[in-house]
Amino acid sequence: MTTDTQSRVAAAVDRAVEDAAASGFETTSRADRARWLRALADALDADRAALVPLAHAETHLSEARLDGEVTRTVGQLRFFAAVIEEGSYLEATIDSADATLTPPRPALHRMLRPLGPVAVFSASNFPFAFSVLGNDTASALAAGCPVVVKGHPGHPELSRRVAELATQALADAGAPSGALSLVEGVEEGVALVEHPSVTAVGFTGSLRGGRALFDIASARPAPIPFYGELGSLNPVVVTEAAAAARAAGVAEGLVGSFTRDGGQYCTKPGIVFVPSGAGLEGEVAARIPGAPAQQLLTQGMSDAFARGSSALADRDDVEVVAVGAADDAASAPTVLAVSVDAFAAAHETFLTECFGPLTLLVRYADRAELDRAIAVLEGSLTATIHCEPDEDVSSLTERLSRIAGRVLFNGWPTGVAIAWGQQHGGPWPATTASIHTSVGATAIRRWLTPLALQDAPASVLPAELAAGNPLGIPRREDGVLVVPGTERA
Amino acid sequence: MTTDTQSRVAAAVDRAVEDAAASGFETTSRADRARWLRALADALDADRAALVPLAHAETHLSEARLDGEVTRTVGQLRFFAAVIEEGSYLEATIDSADATLTPPRPALHRMLRPLGPVAVFSASNFPFAFSVLGNDTASALAAGCPVVVKGHPGHPELSRRVAELATQALADAGAPSGALSLVEGVEEGVALVEHPSVTAVGFTGSLRGGRALFDIASARPAPIPFYGELGSLNPVVVTEAAAAARAAGVAEGLVGSFTRDGGQYCTKPGIVFVPSGAGLEGEVAARIPGAPAQQLLTQGMSDAFARGSSALADRDDVEVVAVGAADDAASAPTVLAVSVDAFAAAHETFLTECFGPLTLLVRYADRAELDRAIAVLEGSLTATIHCEPDEDVSSLTERLSRIAGRVLFNGWPTGVAIAWGQQHGGPWPATTASIHTSVGATAIRRWLTPLALQDAPASVLPAELAAGNPLGIPRREDGVLVVPGTERA
Repeated sequence: MTTDTQSRVAAAVDRAVEDAAASGFETTSRADRARWLRALADALDADRAALVPLAHAETHLSEARLDGEVTRTVGQLRFFAAVIEEGSYLEATIDSADATLTPPRPALHRMLRPLGPVAVFSASNFPFAFSVLGNDTASALAAGCPVVVKGHPGHPELSRRVAELATQALADAGAPSGALSLVEGVEEGVALVEHPSVTAVGFTGSLRGGRALFDIASARPAPIPFYGELGSLNPVVVTEAAAAARAAGVAEGLVGSFTRDGGQYCTKPGIVFVPSGAGLEGEVAARIPGAPAQQLLTQGMSDAFARGSSALADRDDVEVVAVGAADDAASAPTVLAVSVDAFAAAHETFLTECFGPLTLLVRYADRAELDRAIAVLEGSLTATIHCEPDEDVSSLTERLSRIAGRVLFNGWPTGVAIAWGQQHGGPWPATTASIHTSVGATAIRRWLTPLALQDAPASVLPAELAAGNPLGIPRREDGVLVVPGTERA
Repeated sequence: MTTDTQSRVAAAVDRAVEDAAASGFETTSRADRARWLRALADALDADRAALVPLAHAETHLSEARLDGEVTRTVGQLRFFAAVIEEGSYLEATIDSADATLTPPRPALHRMLRPLGPVAVFSASNFPFAFSVLGNDTASALAAGCPVVVKGHPGHPELSRRVAELATQALADAGAPSGALSLVEGVEEGVALVEHPSVTAVGFTGSLRGGRALFDIASARPAPIPFYGELGSLNPVVVTEAAAAARAAGVAEGLVGSFTRDGGQYCTKPGIVFVPSGAGLEGEVAARIPGAPAQQLLTQGMSDAFARGSSALADRDDVEVVAVGAADDAASAPTVLAVSVDAFAAAHETFLTECFGPLTLLVRYADRAELDRAIAVLEGSLTATIHCEPDEDVSSLTERLSRIAGRVLFNGWPTGVAIAWGQQHGGPWPATTASIHTSVGATAIRRWLTPLALQDAPASVLPAELAAGNPLGIPRREDGVLVVPGTERA
């Protein structure tokens, strides 16, 4: 960078972060923030007819899919409004003084508070749901953290448009200025992670980009948490019994899942363990000619997919099961197969995510071979078991639970429900922070830090910790969890 | 290191970690682990008469203090047994299927599960409470994580003795072998953090040592969380009104706190903002001749304290308020004073922790000067306000809440109570992971990671997530927090 460019980058990022830091957003009430989240949801919903075509033009994703994604994003914003209204996320805890203990216990009032300004790197493959007003932004605003979004270059016009409508909606609803802003550019992204007033980073993207930013966040003079969701292989195990009982149904589901929207999901099933010799492969192959081809998000991704899929297909130890139709723009759905021996021997190659409509069938002869293959797997967001009702899959479940944040049964991992109990995370390299999630109610925990007040005068206690529980939230009082509206039986 | 040394180090660490990984400890029940924690508490308590003199000989801490620390450590082990029996720490969450949502919601069962083998670096200044069977170990074992402790070289015989009795107590109580072991040595510590089967690290120690190990943990091919508690300045603000109303009482408390056990606490009040010209300084100075001198934990610490306190006292902008009695072995309690201007101008020097019986009074003229001084503070474990009942300290509280995990009123930060609502953490450089705590019930969260089971057959659900809640733990069911033993009013 030239000195001029450096100054311009620094000035843009400084302005966004300092506006966030000066916004006073951390001291706003939960009631206000819930209202603002719903105002953002309403604004997004109201502008749907203009936003969807804009997103389609920039990402090539279908308008039907994008319309559904708007609905999802609106739902996420409303969901986090409900989460903060309910209030348990604060972990409000009150211990009364007890001088008889060793050491003596003073009066303690503890709850979680917002960290401060956070940076959110938006994703290419979810231009709404993991972008300017996506899950990271919604959960951070809900927590009380002002947000500076680093827009994804794959959909710049959409990002600007959504940022504009969000800023307007927040202003109209009376939120402090500086609560949400957008910066763009690679250097700006680095400057954002390095900025001393940024307290945490959320990221959805590639392993390479995520690792580079994680390393910067960790090497800062004052390191900060970096919540990176870096993609995943999402292994699927089809048991012999399941393959025998319902090969056609499993094949139908698999092809639908790995080719959905061009396979551009971090939860795409990229590795499927199939029993050798079962009819499943034929059923999968039969469905590939009818599978949709999709132009990928960017030319760079199309090129990378072509290179990656060819490199795998050209290997001597790989069999090409089926390749679908493609044209100059769209990428062809591709199914490859390999033995457990070959998979284990070259697992570093096979465990490199090929982003796009490709899945690899790994043929296993028996449980011992299956275990050998599973042993080389790395962390994933999901793992899936297709089995029959009378099978005992508890040891297989335990095994897969160690490498994935979500384990599914007789379903497909694409499509991540918004729910209190959702988990979207997993061991490295699926994420940089496996004890957290980027989807579901507890995604808010990433932006909060505990504060204990010792022997505090009533005048400084937040209403959530005040005597008599005036805001009616669940609290732990002298060790006992108390939920307003319920009574000891 | 020579190749022979490297091999020896690698072999010792490999054995400990692989034994932990093979122990099956992660799949043990909460009921068993609660029993084992209590067995450890009983064994420690029973061996108190032998352990306290051994600790005294190695650390120079008084037998009375060490006896109290054993009581505290026994209490911590029993506390975490109660925490896991209560069960809310699992965050058990059940969402039933709802096909009407976008995206549709499958049935989800979520709870936290143990990460796997963890490393715990024990502290010099708490040979029991933050050592082999200290808070990190107790919370990790409670979580279901097997532990490899890196013993502190300041009390090697004690560490070995406690590890032996712990191993025996666990074996007698039927716990799996490999659940807890001890390694020693600097190279062993590094190898432990680098070991691919170690999933997280707890550390209590110096900023320099902690940063070095944090950097290693973050730079691993698969990075892992590093929970480091690195010490703290623990600023105290005495308001003009408090200084006027009760200078003698504040001085008495301050001298007692900063000289307690040689000032060797991470919560020692190291910086005290005092109103210029108030009588407080004289009251403090008057108590120094009567304050106890204490031989520090190691010769290295004594030397570092002598160097650090002299370097500060010799500065032109520093006034020596009082220096207590010392002899060849013991370090002298030392009180220094500086103006806000000088403090702010050389804050990097004044914010370097001087481990031992030293505190720095920073003289402020008015609230504007106080704010200017507070603005240069870094993260601390605690911050304290001494004020009068009719004062409005809410803005001061908000300010200090941003830089400390615990804010105290009219008390002293040394002595960290064991409680559900305790928080022992804070922004960098107090810790490497400010959103967590190393003391209190939620310290267990550091060793746990969420798992969601989607459309799981009943046969693979843990009992904590089974229909009808057979284990009777608090759970969130379809968004509603349900505490067994209570009913909707």
